[in-house]
Amino acid sequence: MTTFHSPARFPRGFQCASRNVGLKPEAKDLTIFVSEVEANAAAVFTRNHFPGAPIILGRETIKGGRLKAIVANSKVSNVATGTRGVENARRMAAAAATELGTTADRVLVSSTGVIGVQLPVEKVERGIRGMAGDLQTDPLVGAEGIMTTDTHPKALSASVGDATITWVAKGSGMIEPNMATMLSYIFTDAALDAATLDRMLRAAVARSFNMLSVDTDTSTSDTCVILANGLAGAVNEAAFLEMLVAGCIRMTEILGRDGEGAEHLLRVKVRGAKDDTEARVIAKSVLNSPLVKTMVHGADPNVGRLLMAVGKCFDCTIAPSATDAWINGYQVVRGGERLEFDDAVVRAALTAEVVDLEIALGVGEADATAYGCDLTKGYVEENASYYSS
Amino acid sequence: MTTFHSPARFPRGFQCASRNVGLKPEAKDLTIFVSEVEANAAAVFTRNHFPGAPIILGRETIKGGRLKAIVANSKVSNVATGTRGVENARRMAAAAATELGTTADRVLVSSTGVIGVQLPVEKVERGIRGMAGDLQTDPLVGAEGIMTTDTHPKALSASVGDATITWVAKGSGMIEPNMATMLSYIFTDAALDAATLDRMLRAAVARSFNMLSVDTDTSTSDTCVILANGLAGAVNEAAFLEMLVAGCIRMTEILGRDGEGAEHLLRVKVRGAKDDTEARVIAKSVLNSPLVKTMVHGADPNVGRLLMAVGKCFDCTIAPSATDAWINGYQVVRGGERLEFDDAVVRAALTAEVVDLEIALGVGEADATAYGCDLTKGYVEENASYYSS
Repeated sequence: MTTFHSPARFPRGFQCASRNVGLKPEAKDLTIFVSEVEANAAAVFTRNHFPGAPIILGRETIKGGRLKAIVANSKVSNVATGTRGVENARRMAAAAATELGTTADRVLVSSTGVIGVQLPVEKVERGIRGMAGDLQTDPLVGAEGIMTTDTHPKALSASVGDATITWVAKGSGMIEPNMATMLSYIFTDAALDAATLDRMLRAAVARSFNMLSVDTDTSTSDTCVILANGLAGAVNEAAFLEMLVAGCIRMTEILGRDGEGAEHLLRVKVRGAKDDTEARVIAKSVLNSPLVKTMVHGADPNVGRLLMAVGKCFDCTIAPSATDAWINGYQVVRGGERLEFDDAVVRAALTAEVVDLEIALGVGEADATAYGCDLTKGYVEENASYYSS
Repeated sequence: MTTFHSPARFPRGFQCASRNVGLKPEAKDLTIFVSEVEANAAAVFTRNHFPGAPIILGRETIKGGRLKAIVANSKVSNVATGTRGVENARRMAAAAATELGTTADRVLVSSTGVIGVQLPVEKVERGIRGMAGDLQTDPLVGAEGIMTTDTHPKALSASVGDATITWVAKGSGMIEPNMATMLSYIFTDAALDAATLDRMLRAAVARSFNMLSVDTDTSTSDTCVILANGLAGAVNEAAFLEMLVAGCIRMTEILGRDGEGAEHLLRVKVRGAKDDTEARVIAKSVLNSPLVKTMVHGADPNVGRLLMAVGKCFDCTIAPSATDAWINGYQVVRGGERLEFDDAVVRAALTAEVVDLEIALGVGEADATAYGCDLTKGYVEENASYYSS
């Protein structure tokens, strides 16, 4: 069992600040994260064909493998905004660099919010001025400035030997990253080079943020970045990777639980699949099925839907008579047939805040876990008027 | 413009009857369709790995290429019910055969409703007795007995020369057929052999029912069957195929409009794709995006979501700067950028009962249209308590 700090805290040398700069009516809408010394860095970005301007710029910036700061705004995602959008992202990086005494190529920019609206960059530039004076050490303050439909700011931290790892993220909707969650920033004072960070980040993301889906939609702004400023010196790499994965999975669960309108964290564990790819495809198919998601939402023991969602993976190897399923440890399907179970027990299992659906395929040795949430009227309500609200 | 009869009527020699046999509390739950003479027949079934017992039996039955009747029940789908389920499906076929003076291998069985519950076959057997005396010529009477969450019975008919084609279907949820809609029965008095029917049915389904999706979930019971009893003699095959496709598309639209909780029929037309496969993948991606569906539901002009949904087709060829989009004929995206449009005009377009989203990719020559509906609180409500209600 991984122990996370309570409350979450930053590694040595990291600080953050957040403000309202006028993008939202009152709530905080701009955050800066900064390291006292330049950090080695690695990042993964969305695979969407229409990446936001900050992603286009970020892919260029991260090539240097070095970052001093991150600047991120909420409310406007600066996506589908053409060359003017990229120019605005550059101005945002430059403004943060000036304020923090570095160069624009050491600042990673993120934007999250509505798509297809130009960023009011003058407000951002004006707002950044003086933020260096607000810097402090509570990561939740940074998390606040990047929230969109999140119901709470999200930060975690844990120790690895003498080093600390801190995760700050936002999530909620338009989440099936295929790369990372919406915005997820990881800070550490361990001394690790950029290539090692890149390798570890990809390994961690594959098992965590890339297995998260709120609604099958893939944001045009997804970014996951890790900064290592080295102030804690060398670290045991195996222990670091293990903790990195654990924290990414925990943050994935936090994001799933806070999916738009969510009332449950849903985890789908598939085992006995032919290979890793099929394990992931089947886990995601069950996790993303609107009929499974509404079954969990309504605590309705309509467990045949689990088989439907496995069975619609046309191109996967499925042996119906070898397929078993459990809901929070209670077996409901054996050999492809629904067991005669006690409805009340299944209903009770489905009312738990965390619902684990486990599918054993009996086909091979591979397993995978996918993370998400139930589908509620709240999701429909939030997304039927997102632009307008 | 195809002209459909009003009201819909059967071709020569077809009749139907429906009853409540005690599966539902009061509503009709069993239908028989019968042809005066044996008909040539072809069918396509769900690709789900967990097909219902009637599908397992139906694949065997249709090999003969000849059908006299269809018997279908609603409320219980007879899926995930093992060998006992298949035995019950056989008993249902035998009971209908006895009542209608034919043999069980000339009767196609369908069941729709909850998964994983055994069919109360004695009720079905008892209920079928005497139904031959109820036979009549209004196809809507047959459509009534197969409804689940459909809000109205669905039938269409049209003429091709001296012949008639009649479509009777039910739909609503768990619909992304990848074969056909839930249950769709097509009757004609044209004289066509089974191989020709099979070829035409597959061509029609590819452009219609297989491009329909209500919720990305694929039923374990999907069946689309065509019966041709020949009583009208030979028909112009090209004209027949054209009408068959037109009627299948029209029925697809009717099913989309009556998707669970739907308030809009949504049509997504993609043109200029690299090939047919990519055109279909991209059209389905936009159609199935919960964020696009809720945007339509809320008449919220958040049109960047169209680009997001195109862009998440990672493996397709997309040229962002060549991508244009229209909502009911009003252009909202040009060259991958959101146009400065009048929100009120877009809102008005999105409030139409039929919403056409058109995407021009500028990559190749292929096009495709996908059919579906918006995502509403009604969908969540129906599916959070389907088993229990």
